[in-house]
Amino acid sequence: MRPGRPVIMKVIAMHNFTLHTPTKVLFGKGQVAQLREQLPSDARILITYGGGSVVRSGLLAQIKQDLAGMSLFEFGGIEPNPTYETLMGAVELARAEKIDFLLAVGGGSVLDGTKFIAAAAHYDLAKDPWHILETVGGDVASAIPLGAVLTLPATGSEMNMGAVITRKSSGDKQHFFSPFVMPRFAVLDPVLTYTLPARQVANGVVDAFIHTLEQYLTYPVNAKVQDRFAEGLLQTLAEEGPKALVEPENYDVRANIMWSATMALNGLIGAGVPQDWATHMLGHEITALHGLDHAQTLAVVLPALLQAKRAQKHAKLLQYAERVWDLRSGSEEERIDGAIAATRDFFERMGIKTRLRDYGLADANIDTLVAKLAEHGMTSLGEHGDIDLAQSRHIYEAAW
Amino acid sequence: MRPGRPVIMKVIAMHNFTLHTPTKVLFGKGQVAQLREQLPSDARILITYGGGSVVRSGLLAQIKQDLAGMSLFEFGGIEPNPTYETLMGAVELARAEKIDFLLAVGGGSVLDGTKFIAAAAHYDLAKDPWHILETVGGDVASAIPLGAVLTLPATGSEMNMGAVITRKSSGDKQHFFSPFVMPRFAVLDPVLTYTLPARQVANGVVDAFIHTLEQYLTYPVNAKVQDRFAEGLLQTLAEEGPKALVEPENYDVRANIMWSATMALNGLIGAGVPQDWATHMLGHEITALHGLDHAQTLAVVLPALLQAKRAQKHAKLLQYAERVWDLRSGSEEERIDGAIAATRDFFERMGIKTRLRDYGLADANIDTLVAKLAEHGMTSLGEHGDIDLAQSRHIYEAAW
Repeated sequence: MRPGRPVIMKVIAMHNFTLHTPTKVLFGKGQVAQLREQLPSDARILITYGGGSVVRSGLLAQIKQDLAGMSLFEFGGIEPNPTYETLMGAVELARAEKIDFLLAVGGGSVLDGTKFIAAAAHYDLAKDPWHILETVGGDVASAIPLGAVLTLPATGSEMNMGAVITRKSSGDKQHFFSPFVMPRFAVLDPVLTYTLPARQVANGVVDAFIHTLEQYLTYPVNAKVQDRFAEGLLQTLAEEGPKALVEPENYDVRANIMWSATMALNGLIGAGVPQDWATHMLGHEITALHGLDHAQTLAVVLPALLQAKRAQKHAKLLQYAERVWDLRSGSEEERIDGAIAATRDFFERMGIKTRLRDYGLADANIDTLVAKLAEHGMTSLGEHGDIDLAQSRHIYEAAW
Repeated sequence: MRPGRPVIMKVIAMHNFTLHTPTKVLFGKGQVAQLREQLPSDARILITYGGGSVVRSGLLAQIKQDLAGMSLFEFGGIEPNPTYETLMGAVELARAEKIDFLLAVGGGSVLDGTKFIAAAAHYDLAKDPWHILETVGGDVASAIPLGAVLTLPATGSEMNMGAVITRKSSGDKQHFFSPFVMPRFAVLDPVLTYTLPARQVANGVVDAFIHTLEQYLTYPVNAKVQDRFAEGLLQTLAEEGPKALVEPENYDVRANIMWSATMALNGLIGAGVPQDWATHMLGHEITALHGLDHAQTLAVVLPALLQAKRAQKHAKLLQYAERVWDLRSGSEEERIDGAIAATRDFFERMGIKTRLRDYGLADANIDTLVAKLAEHGMTSLGEHGDIDLAQSRHIYEAAW
């Protein structure tokens, strides 16, 4: 083996998997009109939303009108990177009002926050619901059923069982999973995304792109369907993302992005293949400490991580270079450099800076970031579990 | 517009769709071991199977041992192209024994037959269950829940709500759909497919390939994700199919084929796009009258149909030529001819003949085939509904 060649070259078989995605998807223009028949007619429904864009756009009023006569409650103000502190207010409301259905109207943060509300409202009263995060959802035994009207394609939360929650008081950003918080239905209307600010569009596209890479850019297990589905999503996001910024009311562009983002994290492309997720873990600490948008942190960490792990990811980086970026000439190392550069360039074309220093931070606070990783047990990250704290420090430094 | 150019060139938007695939998939080697926990512990379970290969392989005995202590009943002998006549025996058994779960162990025919049993056992006693086919499932209001252990990747029936049933007495082969017959779970173990006869392997690969084409080779609606997912399945089946014939115990090959066949017809690639299905409708009549295998009829009809509809399918045929068969040089018409020839060649390499006359029929009986199409209301087929009986006759003649 030559120096710099992959440590792991052996092709191993696709892993066993269980895939269960019972969320009913209602996709397309005007599908909000089908909302009423998705809801139990006698339910006490808590509508959850974010900073008010759904109020300003009229969507919330339209939904309330469509659901006239049903028992509706409201909880607004769920912030980006939804916080335990805010969400506990909704948990109290849900318990007090005996809410038995949650309707999330918004983007991934509203969805994730609503999943926490759903699980926390049914959680053992003797325990602090933050414990749900500390146990990664393992002891969630029940949740209020929920559905979603999605307004921002990005996180895939509308068709999966995961959520990421932040605790302000301690600067923690952690995730949990539970099949009990899988949405019963998701309304995906691309038209609802026409009015999103460019920054949110860009964040969503980059987030979905990196979700795909976390499940693809690892090592080969000869899972041809999963690989090609992932490549299809990456190509589509790379083609359509920049168009969405210049043609915000192009239905096809919005529809392709919205469907890609859902498919990027509903379990399908990750079934039976190794997964990385180190970029997310390193990024979460940056958001928790410095307040960067989630997608900004990913765009900062990923290129540095790919350089650091290029030997371990050699075979898939070459496949990525060829199939997603059409890089077929030059040496293998040149093609890999080309693919990493094309990825960085794509993020920059979306308007997302790819170096920490671009975000006006006084200094990098890398000691603190690494200390938080240690505190959260993030000491063996990546598909091989070989990204230790020293390597995470190196990646943070390279991302500066 | 030049002669011979597509009649419909306008790019229209992705259609609205509802996608709901609640089947829990348990994929991989040894997953049968998880069967017991998928079943209600107090259920009266009818195990359904086919011609006895699951008896000879020991799979049925293993399942009965794994489920020891549960209330098990058996119904074997469901044939390829399962018949109403055979299945009604199981319907009577299910009613008499108050069966409340059906476990299908076999391929697409056992699955389809079990779906009919599930719906027919709950059907209005005053009506003949053949009426389920005549109403395409529209009046099915309930069904016995069912699960599956798949032994033959082909039809996708393990993760969808459709079934095709034949009535011998009248020479009819018809389909129905109902959400009530969507399997609750599907165990997909590629190892179970190692011992399949080559003919069944070939039939399965070609069936899945043509299922994909029926949802892909129509006209563009700018549905990039669906197109690329379909292309990924087509490439994978074209690569892995011939390998399965020469390396029957190659796990990766079997796994890729099995997962492709499920994905080819679980609703995913067909969501929001036009669909054709004329090849299937024309093929069904050939099976019903001449007894050819389902996949054989598709391999016979498809090349003739693509030639007949090459103007209407022009844009997608070019995309198919380039992305699936890597045909990038020559005129547009040459590339389309190349793609149709490559498709025919692929079927032949799988050992499936692509002309009716190759099957030893005395004559083509085309009058009878066309009469049966008329009887079944198949008078405006294809994605444009423009394949009338005259054009179907032409396609049958070209397929001879």
